Amino acid sequence: MTSNDDDGGAATAELLTATIELGGALRELIEASVTTTAAATEVAAAAELVRAATARIGGAPRPVSQLARLDDPAGGLRVFNPVTGVAHPLAPPLVVHQEDDGGVVAEVTLGLAYEGPPTFVHGGMSALFMDQMLGSAAGAAGLWGMTAHLELDYRSPLPLQTALQFRARVASHEGRKAFITGTIALAAAPEKILVEARGLFVMPRPEKQAAYFGSVTDAAGRHAPPRRPGDATALQQG
Amino acid sequence: MTSNDDDGGAATAELLTATIELGGALRELIEASVTTTAAATEVAAAAELVRAATARIGGAPRPVSQLARLDDPAGGLRVFNPVTGVAHPLAPPLVVHQEDDGGVVAEVTLGLAYEGPPTFVHGGMSALFMDQMLGSAAGAAGLWGMTAHLELDYRSPLPLQTALQFRARVASHEGRKAFITGTIALAAAPEKILVEARGLFVMPRPEKQAAYFGSVTDAAGRHAPPRRPGDATALQQG
Repeated sequence: MTSNDDDGGAATAELLTATIELGGALRELIEASVTTTAAATEVAAAAELVRAATARIGGAPRPVSQLARLDDPAGGLRVFNPVTGVAHPLAPPLVVHQEDDGGVVAEVTLGLAYEGPPTFVHGGMSALFMDQMLGSAAGAAGLWGMTAHLELDYRSPLPLQTALQFRARVASHEGRKAFITGTIALAAAPEKILVEARGLFVMPRPEKQAAYFGSVTDAAGRHAPPRRPGDATALQQG
Repeated sequence: MTSNDDDGGAATAELLTATIELGGALRELIEASVTTTAAATEVAAAAELVRAATARIGGAPRPVSQLARLDDPAGGLRVFNPVTGVAHPLAPPLVVHQEDDGGVVAEVTLGLAYEGPPTFVHGGMSALFMDQMLGSAAGAAGLWGMTAHLELDYRSPLPLQTALQFRARVASHEGRKAFITGTIALAAAPEKILVEARGLFVMPRPEKQAAYFGSVTDAAGRHAPPRRPGDATALQQG
């Protein structure tokens, strides 16, 4: 939802601000909910407030085939991407920067909401984040595709509450296929690779794209087939 | 935190109830937050309620090395596992059942909070869920380990708002290693595999276990090295 007239622009900015605020507030509450030592009565009171919040905004959800009103998939903006979305409560979020050499990088510190084995990041979270990073690397290279194969080697567990560095780059591409690699390391020791990922992303054939996304509309109900469904993120330059 | 005396048992039950309530309420609010069509003022009001909830429970979080008070890692209960935890807002949750033949199965319907390409599950979410399923399969076989290698083949995207079936089983194991396979299909068409996963899980050597988990304590401050850190879930029989 973008608008060039002043009123529409101001309304969009207000909605974006409130939406980012809610996403950020929810991230803090999620982390509090898994780490709290408060009494049961306080936890129950928090649940009551959460239900009141849902009552404020839950009345008329968009249908699954309708994009979020703040999204601009053609431009790569998706505020509710579950890894990178600025307003998605599940996203840390990863803020993906494009580098001069064509790769992408993101740094993030993960809280206990992402825990697997005690004190470490859940192995599946590494896979979730790397899948997104590989897709973002495709986007940065002007490509897009959907995950066809993903594999990860875990050399060492990732500590929670410690700055991590995620990297990805397109290794090669041919026709509709892109081979993409990525790594995770501590931000303080970026040379020591802790997790390594490789992915094959494939752009669906036109008839598949039509079958997958033919019913997708924007918030105004206009047909809006995504041009880059695999790259769900606005990249930040530099 | 388990207790055999009546008062402690009742307090634990009350806390568990409130904690599950909060987790469930948060899941609903997360889904509402990514699908809402409410006005910006309503979204901002929801954020305010969420901050009030955080103020109720966020005062004294447990440190990262201290297990959640409701957890019993020796028994496999972790209420805040981000995939299977009954009280984790990020978990759908997957409710994992052990089958007579030794495998594990879970059925779940995913909302727009788990979206990648429009109308489909994020490819990384499939990886996250399968990593957990493979770990649960290890646990069901009396094994445990941490993910050393994970790979997935994506044959077809997974639709949102549609019942999915996740399966996993230990293919073979030797010494500290377990090879585990898994699949995702529509619950209505379980024979047609949409995503296939293979994993190698490795139990760390005793000295590694000591290094990884030596500082972990339970909620009472007692040393509590997890016996099965890779299997974070209470399995439901049958």
